This record gives sequence, structure tokens and C-alpha cells, in this order.
Amino acid sequence: MSLSRNPDRQAAVVGIGQTEFSKASGRSELQLAAECIRSAMADAGIAPAEIDGMVTFSLDNNDEIGLGRCLGIENLNFSSRVPNGGLGSVGTLAHAAAVIESGLCEVVVIWRAMNERSQYRFGQPMVNQAIAPGGGTGFMEWCAPFGAQTPASWIALGAQRYMSTYGVDNEDFGRIAVSQRQYAATNPAAWFHGKPMRLADHQQSRWVAPPVLRLLDCCQESDGGVALVLTRLSRARHLRQPPVRVLAATQSMPFDTEVATNFYHGDLARMVEGEATARRLYALTGLGPQHMQAAMLYDAFTPLVMMQLEAFGFCGPGEGRDFVRDGHLGPGGRLPVNTHGGLLSEAYIHGVNSMAEGVRQVRGSAANPVPGVEHVLLSSCFAGAILGRDQN
Amino acid sequence: MSLSRNPDRQAAVVGIGQTEFSKASGRSELQLAAECIRSAMADAGIAPAEIDGMVTFSLDNNDEIGLGRCLGIENLNFSSRVPNGGLGSVGTLAHAAAVIESGLCEVVVIWRAMNERSQYRFGQPMVNQAIAPGGGTGFMEWCAPFGAQTPASWIALGAQRYMSTYGVDNEDFGRIAVSQRQYAATNPAAWFHGKPMRLADHQQSRWVAPPVLRLLDCCQESDGGVALVLTRLSRARHLRQPPVRVLAATQSMPFDTEVATNFYHGDLARMVEGEATARRLYALTGLGPQHMQAAMLYDAFTPLVMMQLEAFGFCGPGEGRDFVRDGHLGPGGRLPVNTHGGLLSEAYIHGVNSMAEGVRQVRGSAANPVPGVEHVLLSSCFAGAILGRDQN
Repeated sequence: MSLSRNPDRQAAVVGIGQTEFSKASGRSELQLAAECIRSAMADAGIAPAEIDGMVTFSLDNNDEIGLGRCLGIENLNFSSRVPNGGLGSVGTLAHAAAVIESGLCEVVVIWRAMNERSQYRFGQPMVNQAIAPGGGTGFMEWCAPFGAQTPASWIALGAQRYMSTYGVDNEDFGRIAVSQRQYAATNPAAWFHGKPMRLADHQQSRWVAPPVLRLLDCCQESDGGVALVLTRLSRARHLRQPPVRVLAATQSMPFDTEVATNFYHGDLARMVEGEATARRLYALTGLGPQHMQAAMLYDAFTPLVMMQLEAFGFCGPGEGRDFVRDGHLGPGGRLPVNTHGGLLSEAYIHGVNSMAEGVRQVRGSAANPVPGVEHVLLSSCFAGAILGRDQN
Repeated sequence: MSLSRNPDRQAAVVGIGQTEFSKASGRSELQLAAECIRSAMADAGIAPAEIDGMVTFSLDNNDEIGLGRCLGIENLNFSSRVPNGGLGSVGTLAHAAAVIESGLCEVVVIWRAMNERSQYRFGQPMVNQAIAPGGGTGFMEWCAPFGAQTPASWIALGAQRYMSTYGVDNEDFGRIAVSQRQYAATNPAAWFHGKPMRLADHQQSRWVAPPVLRLLDCCQESDGGVALVLTRLSRARHLRQPPVRVLAATQSMPFDTEVATNFYHGDLARMVEGEATARRLYALTGLGPQHMQAAMLYDAFTPLVMMQLEAFGFCGPGEGRDFVRDGHLGPGGRLPVNTHGGLLSEAYIHGVNSMAEGVRQVRGSAANPVPGVEHVLLSSCFAGAILGRDQN
């Protein structure tokens, strides 16, 4: 996980693939998964039979064995699933990179596929659902009985403390949504392609969790699938696409956080899991925020973006509001963020579509390309990665 | 994952810990997990706060976050869970070794803790239980409606084909159970400590899945917890215990197998998942069956042991029966197998107690020590590892 390693063992993303993003895919989640993986393998120019590692979310309903049978995978040497829902999404890269760098695997695929609008909706209260092992110790048991039954209500609770501490209001969050919508408007894959919005549109959307979140502070609910393929850098250099190096990738689950919420640590105005992720990534690479030309920050809800800006040192504590106001996140800004439109405006494929956008920015193939990209930060709060160009 | 790697990065087991094995622990699975991990950390001489990676089973009911809070873990850089139930158990070592070798983690703990006798019983038909994602594509949907509702019934189906192909009968399986009971009789941690048995005892036990499995062909149902701690070899050399090197470790999920059963591939008399595991381990290490002085083979049911002997090349196809009859598995035999008594006679902690026994054999601290151990094979069919002494 460091820049100085033998290039034969370093991990690189060599393929990305996705289905269309919709509100009703009209086919099974297994079909979506197989489609996006086949697309990613074709992008890489590697036969699906060569896949020997698979990584997804603990929440993905597909099965490695069934999916492997669909794809013709001959043998898996590794399979794993990351916890924390979308907040752990970038952890899939940490798993994939580690097993390539250790030599356990040669070709690892990451996928997330879901009919999260047509089949079930994360935005609705969970009814009669058991929490799987690894699903957190208290966040349902202790929140749900008091009415906090959706992700919006969980996130709003912490974000309200942040607002109060630093004098942030909902309009400040709205600027993030407007900035990302601007990117989506020029991204043909985005649900909101061709549909920019003004701050007034945001301010007229209905409250979901007042006084923190309006509807347009919340990500979409989407059907679709996205996959990434990784192999070692020495092989990546002979494949179809320019290699996108995983300079570092890690999960980060600090003491006294929770699996998808964070009510227990001392100062709710800080995102301690993001801070731990940042420390680890910067230590592993010797890079800092000043070395990032773009960032894909998990944006299930707009406050998460502002708090990640601070956690990763793009600005100081409490400075996120002004950093956003100054337009740094938008086109031509100092730190373009979620240049595909993000989960707010491209689609909600649980963060994996943002990982694919990071790859496109390093390749130079994004719909909204950032000039001169050397490094892209991927953060999902409880996990993160730094992608980089191959200097060879 | 090869012998030639930089010793700074190679993974070694440096601590093992376990609770007592019982039929009614009288405490929670969280308590059992915390106890066995604390015991393993004490064995290693590393503070629990230093743990930065955790690996368990997809079936373990404990939560990384809750367990981390009990143990005082400051930050996790990696968490994962292996599929395939106990048949994937050794996959935990593959995950742990890979993240140490890649540099992602420094101290990784593997645990499995369960009240599998007092709280629920794997030997009973599953009632009203959903299969979690990653839990297999068809083994419940296609077996359960026809009455195959327990692991014994799933395994017996394939084993009956093996018996028919090679002229094996239930008495042949019984010799495995008798051999393992002999080890348990002299292992103070074993449930059957002080209780050897004769082949006649086995033959008088009731049928569970005739004509394949009698009661004494089946593993126990147990309460308890077992943990292992790993770090890099260069650090391991300065700790309390002699390092036990992970020379290779891998999962193996071939095409057309199932998550905990195996009815779909062409020849049911072969264990294709074990064969794939063996090929991979031997290729990674340059070692072969002749280099193993002992083996811990997953023994939820006796036929699995005989089929693994063939899959790993300790004897040829169909020769397992005579290999067992010749007494090679027992004390003083050519290949002592499950020297703690195994899941049949020590306890059923889902395979992880067998991994701990492999560590004890390499250390030379087993209750039934095998003389001159250089290498120990660990197999759980869908995963395997080779442990070795540190030659330094």
C-alpha cells in the first residue's frame, strides 16, 4: 500500500463497467451484477473466467457462487464483503488491492448491483428486517423505537450538531447539491442529465429531516450495477486501458463509531472516521490534500460532503461552509467534487459509481474531465483510497 | 504467499486463545468472543488496542464494532467475513495473511464464538431462517423441500456416491472416528477427554443418515470460542511464542460447487474444492503431501476426512479406505490427523479449534505432540493453509 513497492505487486484498476441507471431496471439484481461485471471485463480485455477474487457489500443480495456460475468463473481464491453499507464502499478497493498485492489473487472484481428503487427503498423505514451479523451493535435497536428509522434521520442527528457548532444552515448544504447537479447536467449517464438546478429549487424542495435535510439534500434511490476490475500493475501496463494505480486504500472503523451512524464519540461536529481514513491514506502515500486534483466524497446526504472536506484537510474545522460558498467544488474550482453528479445527481449505486468516476478522472475519460489529474481521493467516510496515474 | 517473500511482510500466527468447550456456556456469544480474543492477545503479548484487522465467519453473530468496543480496539483498517460456514473456516487465515503481507494491517485477529448447542443447533432442521447474501444459490431452495434439512443429510448425499464408487462402508468411516477419539482421550481440552471408544461403540450408535452416517460420524454441537492472532514475521520473532509461519493460505470456490454442499459437478466421488485448494497450496509453496507431518482436516462428518486425504494427495483416488485402515491417521501413524480429537471429539467450534491445533503442533505444545513437525496442513475443503516452523 505504499508508493515504493515493487510494481509487479501494486494494484491497479484496469476495467470499469456499469448498467444504465434507472428507477425500474426491469430485471433481476443477478442480471444487473452479471451485466456490469461483463462490461468491466470487456473494458479491461480480460476474460471473466480469469476472475479469482470477488468483493462486494455485506448488503448485496447476489451470491458469489451464483454470479460466478453466470460469468463462467473457474475458481475463486478470495471472496469478501465490506460492512458499513455505502459508507464502507471504498473498503472494497482496500480488500481487492490487498489480495493482489499479497499475491493471493491475480484478477479481482468489485461489484454492487441493486434494484434499490423498484424492489426496495432505503429511504423508507425498514420493516420486519433482521440486521445481519456485522450490521452494527445498536443503531437499529436504539434509534428505531424513537422514530429514527431512515438513513436521513440518522445522519441528520449528527449533522444538526455540526450546524449548531459552526453556524451552518440548510442553504449552505444546498450549494453542494447545486454544484453536483451542474456536473450531472453534462453527464449523459446521470439521471439528472440535462437538468441543472438553482439554489432556489433546492430551497423549495420539501423537508425530509428539518432543519437539516431537504429532499434535494438526499441521494437518489436507483436501480443499477457498477463493477471495477483490478490486477497487478505489471500486467495492467499491457492491457487496453491506462492503468489507474491504487496508491493506498483502507477501511477505518474507529472506537465508538457505529456501522452507519455515529452518535457515540465525544464531538459530533467532527467526522472521526473520515479523519482516521485521511490519516492512514496520507501516511501510506506521503501525499496530502494539496496533492489531490479531484475528490469523490460519499454524498448520501449533503452534510457528509462538507464534513469530509474538513476531515481530509481540504479546509479547517468549521471552514467547510466557506469552502463550498467559494465555489471550489464546482467546475473549474480548486477541488472538483463528485464530477459525475454524485449519488445526489448521477445515481445511488451505493458509492461504487463514484469509485468508477474516480477511475475515469485519472484516465482522462470523464464526461466532465478535470485537467491535469495526477491523484484522485475516494472517500466513503469509513473507508478511502487514493488513485493515481501510472508514471511509467 | 510464497516461501521466497521478504520476511518482514510474511504472516505468522503469534497467539491462540480459547474458552472451555461445553454444551452450555452460560454466557453470551459476545462474551465468548471477547474472552477467546483476550486470551489469544495475552498469549501473543500484544495489547488488544493494537488490533487493526478482524476476520470471522459470515455466520458469526458478533459484530466487529461491538466486539471492538469490548476489547478497546482503537481503529480497524480491515474487517471481513468468510462464506461457506465451517467449510470455509481456513479462509480466515487467507484473509488475515493477505492483509498483513500487503501492509494494510499489522495485527489481525481471527475469531469464531458460538453457543451452537445451548442457543441453536446446526444438527436440527433450520426453521424460518433466511439465507444471508452470499449464503449459496440453491442448497436450501432445492434440498430442503425434499427433506434434506440438515448438514448431515447434505453431506451424506455426496458421500453415498463415494461409498458406491469405491466400495467403502460405514465401518470404514468409523475407523476415523475411533482414531480421533483416541487423541481426544488424552487432550484435557476435549469434550471426550478420558473417553476413548472402540469401533463397536461406533457401530452401535444410531443412524443419522443411513447408510452413510451414524451419530458418531457426526461432529459435536458445542458452545465456545477460539481466536488466533497474526502479525508480520519480523515482529513475530520478538514476541512470546515461537512464530508459526503461514506459508500459504487460500480460499477455493470452483465452478459448479455450492456454498456448503456439492451436488453439481461431474463426479461426486471427487472433492473438487479440496483438489483446487491442494493445487493452489502446493503451487504457492513448492511443497507436496510428502512434506506434511500432520494434517487438520475438516471433520464435520467422517467421510469428509477420507475424501480430503485423496484430494490432497496423501493417497490416490479410492485409496482413502485402506489408508485409514492401515492406521496412518492415529498416534505414531504416517500422517496424524486431527490430533486434538477434531470436531468429532474435541469440540465443534466450526473448524477454528482445528486451526489452533495446527498452531500448537508447529509450536510443539499440543497435548498429543507429533515429533519433528516442520509443516502442518490445514484444510476446510473450500479453503486451506500450510503452517510451518520459522527456520530463522
